[in-house]
Amino acid sequence: MPQVVEPPSGTRDFLADEVRRRRAAFDTISAVFEHYGFDPVQTPAFERLEVFAGKLGDEAAKLIFKILKRGVHEASGEADLALRYDHTVPLARVVGTYGSRLPSPFKRYAIGNVWRADRAAKGRFREFAQCDIDTVGSSSRLADAEILWAINEALQALGIGDFRFLVNSRQALHGLLEAYGIAPQLGLDVLCSLDKLDKTTPEAVTAELTDRGLSSDTAESLVTDVTSPDTDRVRKQLDTTESGRRGLSEVDRLLSLTTGLPEGRVVFTPRMVRGLDYYTGPIFEVLAEGYPGSIASGGRYDGLVAKLGGPDLPACGGSIGIERILATQQTKATTTRGLDVALTVLGAEDDIMRLAAHIREHGLRTGIYLGSSTKLAKQLKWAHDQHARHVLIYGPDEQATGEVTVRDMDTGEQTRLPLADTAAYLRDRHATR
Amino acid sequence: MPQVVEPPSGTRDFLADEVRRRRAAFDTISAVFEHYGFDPVQTPAFERLEVFAGKLGDEAAKLIFKILKRGVHEASGEADLALRYDHTVPLARVVGTYGSRLPSPFKRYAIGNVWRADRAAKGRFREFAQCDIDTVGSSSRLADAEILWAINEALQALGIGDFRFLVNSRQALHGLLEAYGIAPQLGLDVLCSLDKLDKTTPEAVTAELTDRGLSSDTAESLVTDVTSPDTDRVRKQLDTTESGRRGLSEVDRLLSLTTGLPEGRVVFTPRMVRGLDYYTGPIFEVLAEGYPGSIASGGRYDGLVAKLGGPDLPACGGSIGIERILATQQTKATTTRGLDVALTVLGAEDDIMRLAAHIREHGLRTGIYLGSSTKLAKQLKWAHDQHARHVLIYGPDEQATGEVTVRDMDTGEQTRLPLADTAAYLRDRHATR
Repeated sequence: MPQVVEPPSGTRDFLADEVRRRRAAFDTISAVFEHYGFDPVQTPAFERLEVFAGKLGDEAAKLIFKILKRGVHEASGEADLALRYDHTVPLARVVGTYGSRLPSPFKRYAIGNVWRADRAAKGRFREFAQCDIDTVGSSSRLADAEILWAINEALQALGIGDFRFLVNSRQALHGLLEAYGIAPQLGLDVLCSLDKLDKTTPEAVTAELTDRGLSSDTAESLVTDVTSPDTDRVRKQLDTTESGRRGLSEVDRLLSLTTGLPEGRVVFTPRMVRGLDYYTGPIFEVLAEGYPGSIASGGRYDGLVAKLGGPDLPACGGSIGIERILATQQTKATTTRGLDVALTVLGAEDDIMRLAAHIREHGLRTGIYLGSSTKLAKQLKWAHDQHARHVLIYGPDEQATGEVTVRDMDTGEQTRLPLADTAAYLRDRHATR
Repeated sequence: MPQVVEPPSGTRDFLADEVRRRRAAFDTISAVFEHYGFDPVQTPAFERLEVFAGKLGDEAAKLIFKILKRGVHEASGEADLALRYDHTVPLARVVGTYGSRLPSPFKRYAIGNVWRADRAAKGRFREFAQCDIDTVGSSSRLADAEILWAINEALQALGIGDFRFLVNSRQALHGLLEAYGIAPQLGLDVLCSLDKLDKTTPEAVTAELTDRGLSSDTAESLVTDVTSPDTDRVRKQLDTTESGRRGLSEVDRLLSLTTGLPEGRVVFTPRMVRGLDYYTGPIFEVLAEGYPGSIASGGRYDGLVAKLGGPDLPACGGSIGIERILATQQTKATTTRGLDVALTVLGAEDDIMRLAAHIREHGLRTGIYLGSSTKLAKQLKWAHDQHARHVLIYGPDEQATGEVTVRDMDTGEQTRLPLADTAAYLRDRHATR
């Protein structure tokens, strides 16, 4: 009895339609990033364990898949390699490894799997694709804006119609805390609470802030101001502090450099908080109608490349949540790629092989019956299962006259024509679809 | 100081040109296999360790990369997962996992990395791509022939001009041993010696066979017969035994089903031996002018899927040695993908962002200067480093008149034209290249 073994927990097998769907999405994103002058980079699936040492937070470090030493060292139970956790640590490593051999600035995109030993759950995987785009070595605001433009175009190309970039700035968040007189030691907690405003009610967040030690007046005006669709009050507050003004100017520069995007596509969102120990400048996330959570995010992270072991270079970038997008779009019908032409086999096999070759020369997807049945009905069932558009019948009758019967599987119509004309006939029928 | 860390031993970083070159090769192969009605399958990078248990030979088993258990189990030093060693074990697992939900026969191709902890050496990697094509569930000789046709077309599409398929049969090898009166216990050793005939002289192989216990008459006539370009003598010998006749008939069927291929493309090669505990029927390997070793190989392996833990189904397939092909082709010049249009930045940044967007709408690869210099000369150097075909200059002069200067980097020619006409002008210039 064969064992029936599933793929490992949290991983997936992708069969035909799904591979094609994923490949098409990755190709779409690549093509857009290429147009923006970004170059692809592919790093190995694993890195030396030391590359990760101290680079990831404690929580993240627990999630890396470690690879056991090999040969005589296997018995030690020690690891020396680890599967990549994201594309950012390898990016920092590559910038360190190749240094001045890379273009400056280094604009690269990376599309590929990463592995995290996260608790497996619906929609959460241990092997999943990330699509990252980053510019290392530029402090220009144009670099930040370019990331938004490129992600905007990629999302449009993926068929996502209604989406918007929420933008904010790490500096603006600093300024916000200062302007509302929040004690530095409360800062992180307060921002964590504000971050919940997209999932919970303003009242609940206000209550949480009060619990955290803010006066109810401060909590209430902070929440009211940051959730107001009109950002004027927050802007006035930010204007009272140095970081606030710097943050506002970052945000306004980004808004100005993206005025070419559709109206309302980029929105200053003062309550938006992202990875605080990561980003240093403008930050963004993308929300889309009909998609859960954010489908892209990013920002400027000037200190990170050095922290991850690379040289001290400014950097900004973003990531498209491609798994989330693919999972949501999956509910729409996936089309199966069937055969253009299916050849039944009723003897004369050498002729069949040559005929198939001629048909393929016209770019048609062509399959030959490989089963053991000599019954036409059974072979037609196979052709039907293969979603074949045309079936060729070359039985003793046809062989005697050097002809082929072509059956249109949509209409059931059958046409008999000379063997030599078959490939051209099929080409014409498929060209006009 | 940043650490300079190389990628792990035996693995490679692929930068822009190399990623594109590899991607193009994989796309080429995919397109051909799709035309033959094969469907893509992607399995996870790792499998449960039990999937490999007892499935690989001792030598192979030593080469698998094992993944340490996680969390509280990490301290045990035990592994529960392993990186995939090839695409065949995962294929058997997939056939077992999905059973009747897969089409029958199941024609699939797999292109992707596999990992082997082999001693790193020039041209031998620990992470490398394999391109496999297999048909599971068909005993038809058409299935064997189809694999040859598909690989033939893929190799042609990869630009390999001069190559040939050496074909033989496991049964013919059995028959050969029998016909020449070789004791069964010597069979394996004798075949191992014959397998060296493509690398060493007939004399050396004859001597080795004599050492292994064959009479010098037998050794000499065996080596003479199997190396003769004329296969008549071997055919006559094979005709004297049951396995020999079965093997010959397999080979002749394959030759007959591939007569549509160029003359001399498929050659019966009685001395050709491949993986004896693997293949059960026809076998082949492909040699090409200018390429070292074989660049593709395969055959029928009816017992293997069951042995690897899948259901007991007949199967045949082949694999393209894509790393070897890519490495050999690498010596030819690789073209760098430069920018079609490089935009310098001399103020008016919002206009620049919009202008870049218009140009990209015409499908041109467009980059914006992201450095900190305001000097045109420095920005032109950047454009040159980016292999830009055209550079746009939009300085204070041009801004005052609403014009742009377009510089052709090949000719040095400069043209000044209205901002609004720039995108269309560039489109036309690139369309005519």
